Amino acid sequence: MATFGLIEYQDASPEVRAIYDDIMATRKTDWINNFWKAIAHDPATLKRTWDDIKQIMGPGALDPLTKELLYVAVSVTNNCQYCIASHTASAKNKGMTDAMFKELQAVIGMANETNKLVSGYQVEIDERFKTS
Amino acid sequence: MATFGLIEYQDASPEVRAIYDDIMATRKTDWINNFWKAIAHDPATLKRTWDDIKQIMGPGALDPLTKELLYVAVSVTNNCQYCIASHTASAKNKGMTDAMFKELQAVIGMANETNKLVSGYQVEIDERFKTS
Amino acid sequence: MATFGLIEYQDASPEVRAIYDDIMATRKTDWINNFWKAIAHDPATLKRTWDDIKQIMGPGALDPLTKELLYVAVSVTNNCQYCIASHTASAKNKGMTDAMFKELQAVIGMANETNKLVSGYQVEIDERFKTS
Amino acid sequence: MATFGLIEYQDASPEVRAIYDDIMATRKTDWINNFWKAIAHDPATLKRTWDDIKQIMGPGALDPLTKELLYVAVSVTNNCQYCIASHTASAKNKGMTDAMFKELQAVIGMANETNKLVSGYQVEIDERFKTS
Amino acid sequence: MATFGLIEYQDASPEVRAIYDDIMATRKTDWINNFWKAIAHDPATLKRTWDDIKQIMGPGALDPLTKELLYVAVSVTNNCQYCIASHTASAKNKGMTDAMFKELQAVIGMANETNKLVSGYQVEIDERFKTS
Amino acid sequence: MATFGLIEYQDASPEVRAIYDDIMATRKTDWINNFWKAIAHDPATLKRTWDDIKQIMGPGALDPLTKELLYVAVSVTNNCQYCIASHTASAKNKGMTDAMFKELQAVIGMANETNKLVSGYQVEIDERFKTS
Repeated sequence: MATFGLIEYQDASPEVRAIYDDIMATRKTDWINNFWKAIAHDPATLKRTWDDIKQIMGPGALDPLTKELLYVAVSVTNNCQYCIASHTASAKNKGMTDAMFKELQAVIGMANETNKLVSGYQVEIDERFKTS
Repeated sequence: MATFGLIEYQDASPEVRAIYDDIMATRKTDWINNFWKAIAHDPATLKRTWDDIKQIMGPGALDPLTKELLYVAVSVTNNCQYCIASHTASAKNKGMTDAMFKELQAVIGMANETNKLVSGYQVEIDERFKTS
Repeated sequence: MATFGLIEYQDASPEVRAIYDDIMATRKTDWINNFWKAIAHDPATLKRTWDDIKQIMGPGALDPLTKELLYVAVSVTNNCQYCIASHTASAKNKGMTDAMFKELQAVIGMANETNKLVSGYQVEIDERFKTS
Repeated sequence: MATFGLIEYQDASPEVRAIYDDIMATRKTDWINNFWKAIAHDPATLKRTWDDIKQIMGPGALDPLTKELLYVAVSVTNNCQYCIASHTASAKNKGMTDAMFKELQAVIGMANETNKLVSGYQVEIDERFKTS
Repeated sequence: MATFGLIEYQDASPEVRAIYDDIMATRKTDWINNFWKAIAHDPATLKRTWDDIKQIMGPGALDPLTKELLYVAVSVTNNCQYCIASHTASAKNKGMTDAMFKELQAVIGMANETNKLVSGYQVEIDERFKTS
Repeated sequence: MATFGLIEYQDASPEVRAIYDDIMATRKTDWINNFWKAIAHDPATLKRTWDDIKQIMGPGALDPLTKELLYVAVSVTNNCQYCIASHTASAKNKGMTDAMFKELQAVIGMANETNKLVSGYQVEIDERFKTS
């Protein structure tokens, strides 16, 4: 159904292959998921996106698993099915347990509920939050 | 601008006061933010929401700070200004550093970008993700 | 802050005035809210939108109050503050009681929560729902 | 494709079975739709969600059919396909006619359109709506 | 999976056929896509939607291809898969090249990212933008 | 209300000043809008975002004005008020006329409406669109 087909490794330009190689080396895996093969039609977007992901999702003040949970939270809120499936799998690979998955979903659901109660009741921001 | 005014402690029914008391005791604080004062017009919603929040946001497989970061991620994705202000403040209270805040925003921004690249390129879910 | 100012009745073209007159007559009121004064910069959009609203929001299989509650539900889910304020006011004018308002918000909040639980748990559609 | 499989009645714990029994009894039906079987992996979420749904969706100031229509409106606005399919079916079971379905969709579409016209034209909230 | 089946030309009422004929004539094509066949269950919505689309999407200050790109941008942001598929196809028919498609997706992704950075950092509107 | 204050030019590090200088030079202007001053707290995000924006929004297969219109379409759909105000101003600077602005809003509104009709009627993707 994709507008473009997927660009497989053997059909990729050297420029794209170099990025595929870096993705596999960084992730210590031997395959490339469809997202990268789809955006590889635009090598500039492929490169920019991978460079950004590598910079942002690596270790830092937040650990990689926490970042993956955040990715799932955004993807669920946006109802992006591919993103939910791929980042839930990534989170598991990085150590998300079943118990963590369940709590993650509970928080996401709850946050979406209270976000709407706030809107519906037209709650104004407390002064204390403005100066925090 | 609120449809209803806010229900202050001194004007609250005993039923509502008991929940306010529990919120302050649980949070070790002496004030109630506007969200609770707004939904207090509906004591059933106030009670249900507080009971749920207390159950979900407490310690568990995910620590309370991680849950607060997830709350911010959902609220930013939903563009709920009150929720962003209040949960960013809560996250700081629970130990979010400036460095963590910055990484949090970078992850949220990135996730929203790739969510849309997935949609725009109409990427299909990899078989591996379906059986994970 | 508006990109364009608001077009007041006295400054409006005869074409726009005719629509303003119809809005006030239909709604049995003597004022025009900002939404109409803003889109009046584009008389084609003003006319099309008013014609559609009049056709859709009038009595039919669903009564006008139910339609107004639906409008609030959409506006809250989209977090459109102007829309929430204006349609909550309209719903009150059409008979929404405080008790109805509270239940309305509870349903909207709940629906947003379960929508996300469905996404997060990646629930597939039941066969029975496909053939209904 | 689900992250977890579905928990069928025969495989459920007594705690989960008790909730399944209550769902079927309350709804006067002999089956459980996938949503409940998916979140049953987290009995706390299953119980909390069902308790909330039962409290919120029952008769009150708004009748059950109106609440179901609101659920559809939220689900369409969020583009949650499972939710749209299941709550459209529920609404039919509670008496939604074809004529009501069509008007429901017309209102939802219209509300989404005007929500965006409000945003695009940057319409400020009328003073009258702030004090209502 | 559709709630209603699709109304094919041979089964359509004269009223619906007339609109189908106009769609095909306007678009210089000999088929009708599912969207129209689905909403044809409600001839009033079919007529209103087609009349609006014809008025809005025709030539004007913006050329038809630009409008189609805008349609894709909205549909991707809403994650509406049908809409993305159909309007991407339409954009190609109106002259969107591969290079344009790639830039389109890059802009959409970028805009969604910065929209969230704005929210997360709680950026206030510059005075200059308020008076522009 | 911002979580962080804004970083003004005179208070900025040399690293941040260099980016501010490039923004002003590229845009042929002598000021920096709040967005950049807010994310300047995270120089990595400031640099990455500006580099991406400069690459993506420059001339290419789509002209800069068309890209700005797309930015507005995304921002309106996300209801991001800062983004709408700033990119509407940018679009005007790049040549958007009043007539173009009005058509832009009409398309955005219409697209949001039909996106929801598609969801509500549960329209399946035409085979032709899958193979396009």
